Amino acid sequence: MAPSSRTDADALVTSDNPEHPANLIPSLCAKFWTLGWVTGTGGGCSIREGDLVYLAPSGVQKELMRHTDIYVLSLCAQGDALQKQQQRTYLRAPPCYKPSQCTPLFLAAFTRREAGCCIHTHSQWAVLVTLLLETQGPGRDKVFEINNIEQIKGFGRGMHKIGNLGYHDTLRIPVIENTPHEEDLTEYLEAAMEAYPDTYAVLVRRHGVYVWGDNVHKAKTMCESLDYLFQLAVEMKKLGLPWISEVTRIGPDRA
Amino acid sequence: MAPSSRTDADALVTSDNPEHPANLIPSLCAKFWTLGWVTGTGGGCSIREGDLVYLAPSGVQKELMRHTDIYVLSLCAQGDALQKQQQRTYLRAPPCYKPSQCTPLFLAAFTRREAGCCIHTHSQWAVLVTLLLETQGPGRDKVFEINNIEQIKGFGRGMHKIGNLGYHDTLRIPVIENTPHEEDLTEYLEAAMEAYPDTYAVLVRRHGVYVWGDNVHKAKTMCESLDYLFQLAVEMKKLGLPWISEVTRIGPDRA
Amino acid sequence: MAPSSRTDADALVTSDNPEHPANLIPSLCAKFWTLGWVTGTGGGCSIREGDLVYLAPSGVQKELMRHTDIYVLSLCAQGDALQKQQQRTYLRAPPCYKPSQCTPLFLAAFTRREAGCCIHTHSQWAVLVTLLLETQGPGRDKVFEINNIEQIKGFGRGMHKIGNLGYHDTLRIPVIENTPHEEDLTEYLEAAMEAYPDTYAVLVRRHGVYVWGDNVHKAKTMCESLDYLFQLAVEMKKLGLPWISEVTRIGPDRA
Amino acid sequence: MAPSSRTDADALVTSDNPEHPANLIPSLCAKFWTLGWVTGTGGGCSIREGDLVYLAPSGVQKELMRHTDIYVLSLCAQGDALQKQQQRTYLRAPPCYKPSQCTPLFLAAFTRREAGCCIHTHSQWAVLVTLLLETQGPGRDKVFEINNIEQIKGFGRGMHKIGNLGYHDTLRIPVIENTPHEEDLTEYLEAAMEAYPDTYAVLVRRHGVYVWGDNVHKAKTMCESLDYLFQLAVEMKKLGLPWISEVTRIGPDRA
Repeated sequence: MAPSSRTDADALVTSDNPEHPANLIPSLCAKFWTLGWVTGTGGGCSIREGDLVYLAPSGVQKELMRHTDIYVLSLCAQGDALQKQQQRTYLRAPPCYKPSQCTPLFLAAFTRREAGCCIHTHSQWAVLVTLLLETQGPGRDKVFEINNIEQIKGFGRGMHKIGNLGYHDTLRIPVIENTPHEEDLTEYLEAAMEAYPDTYAVLVRRHGVYVWGDNVHKAKTMCESLDYLFQLAVEMKKLGLPWISEVTRIGPDRA
Repeated sequence: MAPSSRTDADALVTSDNPEHPANLIPSLCAKFWTLGWVTGTGGGCSIREGDLVYLAPSGVQKELMRHTDIYVLSLCAQGDALQKQQQRTYLRAPPCYKPSQCTPLFLAAFTRREAGCCIHTHSQWAVLVTLLLETQGPGRDKVFEINNIEQIKGFGRGMHKIGNLGYHDTLRIPVIENTPHEEDLTEYLEAAMEAYPDTYAVLVRRHGVYVWGDNVHKAKTMCESLDYLFQLAVEMKKLGLPWISEVTRIGPDRA
Repeated sequence: MAPSSRTDADALVTSDNPEHPANLIPSLCAKFWTLGWVTGTGGGCSIREGDLVYLAPSGVQKELMRHTDIYVLSLCAQGDALQKQQQRTYLRAPPCYKPSQCTPLFLAAFTRREAGCCIHTHSQWAVLVTLLLETQGPGRDKVFEINNIEQIKGFGRGMHKIGNLGYHDTLRIPVIENTPHEEDLTEYLEAAMEAYPDTYAVLVRRHGVYVWGDNVHKAKTMCESLDYLFQLAVEMKKLGLPWISEVTRIGPDRA
Repeated sequence: MAPSSRTDADALVTSDNPEHPANLIPSLCAKFWTLGWVTGTGGGCSIREGDLVYLAPSGVQKELMRHTDIYVLSLCAQGDALQKQQQRTYLRAPPCYKPSQCTPLFLAAFTRREAGCCIHTHSQWAVLVTLLLETQGPGRDKVFEINNIEQIKGFGRGMHKIGNLGYHDTLRIPVIENTPHEEDLTEYLEAAMEAYPDTYAVLVRRHGVYVWGDNVHKAKTMCESLDYLFQLAVEMKKLGLPWISEVTRIGPDRA
């Protein structure tokens, strides 16, 4: 169903409500810019509401984005996978930009994980963690693992599971290799989602991280917690502290 | 004494005065978010005015909090300890949130130290200091100590004591072990308060720090000074500089 | 063509449009100040529109600049090089400032690279990268090289070339030695532009970096991406990670 | 000359002009707070206009200061030193605060260096530089020295001297030992001023730095440049790079 006119299409991104996705994506991206997550037009953010997906365009300065820059895509969630892909159409496109190369990766989170929001950052801490893992050699460089840090409790146990990870649980974030063209990451991202059915995030080596959640609140707070853990992990490495520990002490005395 | 209606309860968090606790907690938490103290809904802040305790709820994005999100609890400071605990009731609860797991820890500061404000941060510097202490081995990992740094003068000598620490005094902050459930920290926090009767803060290993003070001004400025010292201590460790020194030089010449 | 009066000259820097160069330079410089790029009056920014060049003055606090502080210079793009230089006149000068010593360096970007905007930062990451290169010894200290990092895709292939660098391409930024007087850098900057015809940036040892682009958008986003890479490179050095790697893995398995 | 009433005294700190010292000190201190210079009520800022000195009070949260918090002191610049000190009176005092312990140190800059503004920071970079110097042992720990960094050009050559330091000049900032009471630093600060007649700053070991200038613009920009150099120096130390170098290369080739 394509809108009958440009006016109808623009109505999809026009609202007085600051919580409307077309308003929220620019305000979130401006915040992410101050955190160093979307430097130099890198990274991005997408929100799904029912069948509609709202997307930042390619190549925009993230702290300057406006609601008029937003793409709206219909997921066309009926039919089989191939049909759906063929039917997907942009209900609204901004006049001056191209679609983001991240689009198929965001869609993977929406269709395979029922996510309501997906965030992609180029955070230096994420990149450094993947570089540090790379030095561990084959077999040990495909997953970031950390345990016994309170902030781990910021992550859900997984789709359709109740509650969050516990303090002693090990958080595992799979790492996929980067590809020259961002859309080519999609199959590897989807494979990582299958291999790690409970993960809410996938690291991309020498590139950044994709984080999603059931809604904006969950995607954003998990992305913040993860960036916190990546930064902490880099500082721990500088100080010679291991990411995984056997510590299970409870209480003031270990005697 | 429960309020007779929702309207009465909402009056407890409604004020034009920016210094009212229900307005101050959101503005403080927004500031703390920019400092990296309350990332991803972690950490929090509570203010006591007489018998009333104002609390941020669980799971809220700290930089987006509003006065309508605030809980109000009556301390019921009459009667013995058990009676008091049983009588404590929420005079006002926000419609969409659960109470914070930090509540009993904040209450420990209010009832045992007569504090007017308690701040809980997940600052990475606090976490790193507890990790560095952990490498010192049993017996040396239960207290953070630093001396001969001017910022130490930002701390009071202790409850009911006059004046602040001096430049040459050693600041000591006890460290307790983390527990899977945050409310289970309470007994260990209280034990640390007894063991260190003059402290205004307790570190929680791999988790963060609790800092309190007679009022908002003192709790906030001590929390800032402490975070400054934690960050300095981590940088000192990277540069091979010890936290404790014998330096007692005064004046320009040591001859 | 000199303006007939001060009023005419001031009209060159007076506009309600926030995208007018006289408004944009102050807002960009205020943003750069928060990034640590133009600390203590260091660094600067210039925009060219057709024959007109808009310049920040010397010695101004960059986060406090106003449109009335802006110089306007005519490029006089007709005639041979000598004629042009002699004919260049300030169409508008602010009452209280002197022209920036960076002016001839900005002009080099405008005349030799057809740039629309040039940014000069004193970023500490840029300075540290040049210091780290210096330790490599003669022959290896004249160019910064990094590859296999996604953010490299933020750079254009070069003037009159289509598209951006790829993920596996090596980004090369030439380094010139600093001179006591900033304007004396011009000939070396121009020599580096000739030696590296595709570069959009030149590092100045122990000083900072010059970055330009076809327009403000491209200059600013390339400058951000470059600063990101400089910071990443410094952190990589601290962690013992090399800037150049042979990694060409694509996909999840290297077997 | 004491003001005849509280109203007259308050007029000294009441102005619509944002450049009035009573408005400027709060806005500067709020900016310094974001830079980490005045954490937890530490540090401060004072401005002199003719015979009047405007001072921030002791113990105030620097990002929350208001014009009504400002002290105004008369320098009484006539008569001999002892007379002057005895005659100095507060023309205006805020109702809720005590004078800052930094006051005699600020006065030293105003009376001995004819400064128009003096800034005191607790910057961690300043503290770390003094700690790193301390490890050099007696005789080498009393002055911070750095050369061949462009930002050095942000410093004046000295009182009554024309122009700024050059790129190859060595910037020298004397270090004095900290004292338990801040006012006791005064004699050592004054001795350092005599020993280094051209300096615009004095480091205080394990404490911070005092920086002054002929006016607010010069004091602030020199303080920014100095903090930049302190941070750079700490990073250089982490990377094994020396603060003093013999490099005198000019131009692209050293052959």
